[in-house]
Amino acid sequence: MVNKKGEVISSAVTNLDLHDISRAARTFGVGRFFVVTPLADQRRLVEKIISHWQHGAGATYNPDRREALATICVAHCLDEVLQRLDREAGQRPAVVATTCRRHVGCIDVISVRQMLKAGRPLLLLFGTAWGLAPQLLENTDFVLEPVEGPTAYNHLSVRSAAAIILDRLLATPVA
Amino acid sequence: MVNKKGEVISSAVTNLDLHDISRAARTFGVGRFFVVTPLADQRRLVEKIISHWQHGAGATYNPDRREALATICVAHCLDEVLQRLDREAGQRPAVVATTCRRHVGCIDVISVRQMLKAGRPLLLLFGTAWGLAPQLLENTDFVLEPVEGPTAYNHLSVRSAAAIILDRLLATPVA
Repeated sequence: MVNKKGEVISSAVTNLDLHDISRAARTFGVGRFFVVTPLADQRRLVEKIISHWQHGAGATYNPDRREALATICVAHCLDEVLQRLDREAGQRPAVVATTCRRHVGCIDVISVRQMLKAGRPLLLLFGTAWGLAPQLLENTDFVLEPVEGPTAYNHLSVRSAAAIILDRLLATPVA
Repeated sequence: MVNKKGEVISSAVTNLDLHDISRAARTFGVGRFFVVTPLADQRRLVEKIISHWQHGAGATYNPDRREALATICVAHCLDEVLQRLDREAGQRPAVVATTCRRHVGCIDVISVRQMLKAGRPLLLLFGTAWGLAPQLLENTDFVLEPVEGPTAYNHLSVRSAAAIILDRLLATPVA
């Protein structure tokens, strides 16, 4: 990720990102939600949170939450995710990065919907902090057009952006 | 609201709801985000959080956040909100409740978009905990169709649901 100054950092994991994004993933039929961080203590923390909801007191208190958090896998880098998907599915997914800025040559929602309809597996990347690092963005297959409303303000949380993008890509279109 | 057992309760305010929903409101051009709770200590807490981002250290640290949280107004009940809107705008808005369950006679997204296009002011209601109390739902002008993905799972966070609904109602449709 980058921080406020544009420096490359490893951001901390936010507990509610795990809950909100896994619940949206489960709602929209996403196969897996990979939480990727190079920080070993953050990976342990995520595993501990998942365990609480999978096997601990959370599992009986709220089974719907258990079902959502079951979509989460933890990984230390994007390459590990791609290697796992390649090994398990025998196919490398198209990697689609998301960002709040409009990139030259970005792909629109309709084109990604068509890729999904054609059966192409996709890996969507979402960034925390001040977004995905430029060197990561430049090395993905596609960059998705940003979520834009009728204003120039574009500072959604990653939880909101992920929910909207999954809805745009995977729900039945409204219009 | 109702709790897990369906009993009517006053839920606690979640800090990230203030941030996420105000940022989505600001993105999609919503005029005001009312945080409504009958609990005086919760209203004070919300005022304190807003003040941190409006006038405290948060205001200089993150001006985008200040701009988002400026959309928040605190109220103790729905009637207070309606009276304020009536006094300020001279017009009672149509009240549209949201829920994760499909209600008989619920209104669809396209119809609400048409009401907005016709210039009708709207007040959208979002619930926390296990959702809006039935007696509240039954006394609104409309109940919006639920957000549904391609699965039967319907346990989005209120943050995700609000983001998706604002996007569906106020962004340019994708298809």
